[in-house]
Amino acid sequence: MMTAHVWPIRVYWEDTDASGVVYHANYLRWAERGRSEWLRAQGGEQQRWIEAQGVAFTVAELSVRYRRPARLDDALQVVTVVERIRRASLTFQQTIEHVARQEILATLSVKAGSVSLESFRPQPLPAWFLRQNSD
Amino acid sequence: MMTAHVWPIRVYWEDTDASGVVYHANYLRWAERGRSEWLRAQGGEQQRWIEAQGVAFTVAELSVRYRRPARLDDALQVVTVVERIRRASLTFQQTIEHVARQEILATLSVKAGSVSLESFRPQPLPAWFLRQNSD
Amino acid sequence: MMTAHVWPIRVYWEDTDASGVVYHANYLRWAERGRSEWLRAQGGEQQRWIEAQGVAFTVAELSVRYRRPARLDDALQVVTVVERIRRASLTFQQTIEHVARQEILATLSVKAGSVSLESFRPQPLPAWFLRQNSD
Amino acid sequence: MMTAHVWPIRVYWEDTDASGVVYHANYLRWAERGRSEWLRAQGGEQQRWIEAQGVAFTVAELSVRYRRPARLDDALQVVTVVERIRRASLTFQQTIEHVARQEILATLSVKAGSVSLESFRPQPLPAWFLRQNSD
Repeated sequence: MMTAHVWPIRVYWEDTDASGVVYHANYLRWAERGRSEWLRAQGGEQQRWIEAQGVAFTVAELSVRYRRPARLDDALQVVTVVERIRRASLTFQQTIEHVARQEILATLSVKAGSVSLESFRPQPLPAWFLRQNSD
Repeated sequence: MMTAHVWPIRVYWEDTDASGVVYHANYLRWAERGRSEWLRAQGGEQQRWIEAQGVAFTVAELSVRYRRPARLDDALQVVTVVERIRRASLTFQQTIEHVARQEILATLSVKAGSVSLESFRPQPLPAWFLRQNSD
Repeated sequence: MMTAHVWPIRVYWEDTDASGVVYHANYLRWAERGRSEWLRAQGGEQQRWIEAQGVAFTVAELSVRYRRPARLDDALQVVTVVERIRRASLTFQQTIEHVARQEILATLSVKAGSVSLESFRPQPLPAWFLRQNSD
Repeated sequence: MMTAHVWPIRVYWEDTDASGVVYHANYLRWAERGRSEWLRAQGGEQQRWIEAQGVAFTVAELSVRYRRPARLDDALQVVTVVERIRRASLTFQQTIEHVARQEILATLSVKAGSVSLESFRPQPLPAWFLRQNSD
């Protein structure tokens, strides 16, 4: 049902560490860009959700497997597939890939919840969004 | 009048980049920790200011001179001196120093303004704070 | 056999995001500080390992469960327990805790490998370290 | 002589802080992306310089003026103009701009030096690069 969403990433100095390769926590930043761009492609602007409804996504759990390092200047891509949509949560499978070498550098599984920014309690995703993503 | 406030910093992997030394933007994170701890030492908890008055500090301008690199595991300190206090702004002189080598690694000048988080317009600093810091 | 290592963390502006709480990827930076300080408490200086042997730790896999948010100014701690030591890898169980509220904010499981910085192939941990940590 | 180089930036969660807008240090990350992309447009791949000659850029000094905040989802651009090229240094004038509102959010002046990664002493920029950029 769901197709893969692909978003390009370039490795900059900010992403690397003294081991000469990308710092492990930065894969999470890239994966989050991938999810935000997937959402934008669906018509979802998160800043508007915050302002209109005080609702935002929060990561509930995640796991990462790191397979190969990435280096400065490498051209990568985040591939995002939505695995499951519930009333107030989304589960994603994501990979970080080296474009020219066609290698998977890391795989991630991320569960994000929709919460009220007041209480951090679960809030249903917007109705139009749930409709659009039901099959 | 003002005495120097000193705050310890340790260099971790997150701070470094592929050149083997600390990434230049991270000196700004450290300087901000120094200013926050200076404020805390004065009795100022920023989260409480946000919640009670919707007021926070925002950096208006800054300049940095980088003199020597810092490496993983280095024990450093941020030295913070308040240069000037106005009704709605603070100017700081800060240095990042290598403790064991007694070397200055970077010098910063930072002007921070107190603003409303609604409008990002200037808001006076709390009265008790201005009183406490008037000579 | 292994005792828990505890390291204090303070939440600064750099750690938070526009939802008003700590950005999820930053728990990984804190957990890494906890592991680095655990290692330092054992006598291990990573910068010296890099310079002397060209060896460093790299994260092979990790998982995180986020339970409650953390806010600016919160005083937290990273609790690090080593679960397993192999010739060229270490597995850690870590928690991020709110000190005053005695709450667990997040739990992490992290497997780190010791690798050559030339080849990113596994390299045995230093002999003294393995001896010290065998029971 | 020099034309302006323009590079798009999107604001993600990773860039923001608890004040609801972009954290001040992150403008430096964006400016660095702008300089790296300007260099790439000239034919300069920094990872290759590191590997071939052990040479990299290091920021020697910078100043920033912050004028207006940026928020999650904002579409921005970094505009980079090279002000001066010396044998072993480059000076840039950069602005961070809000595309739709045609507003300048921040202006930066950055001096970067070319150094040996062994000694952190100045090293001349590659000959082809100096030739290409002499008028």
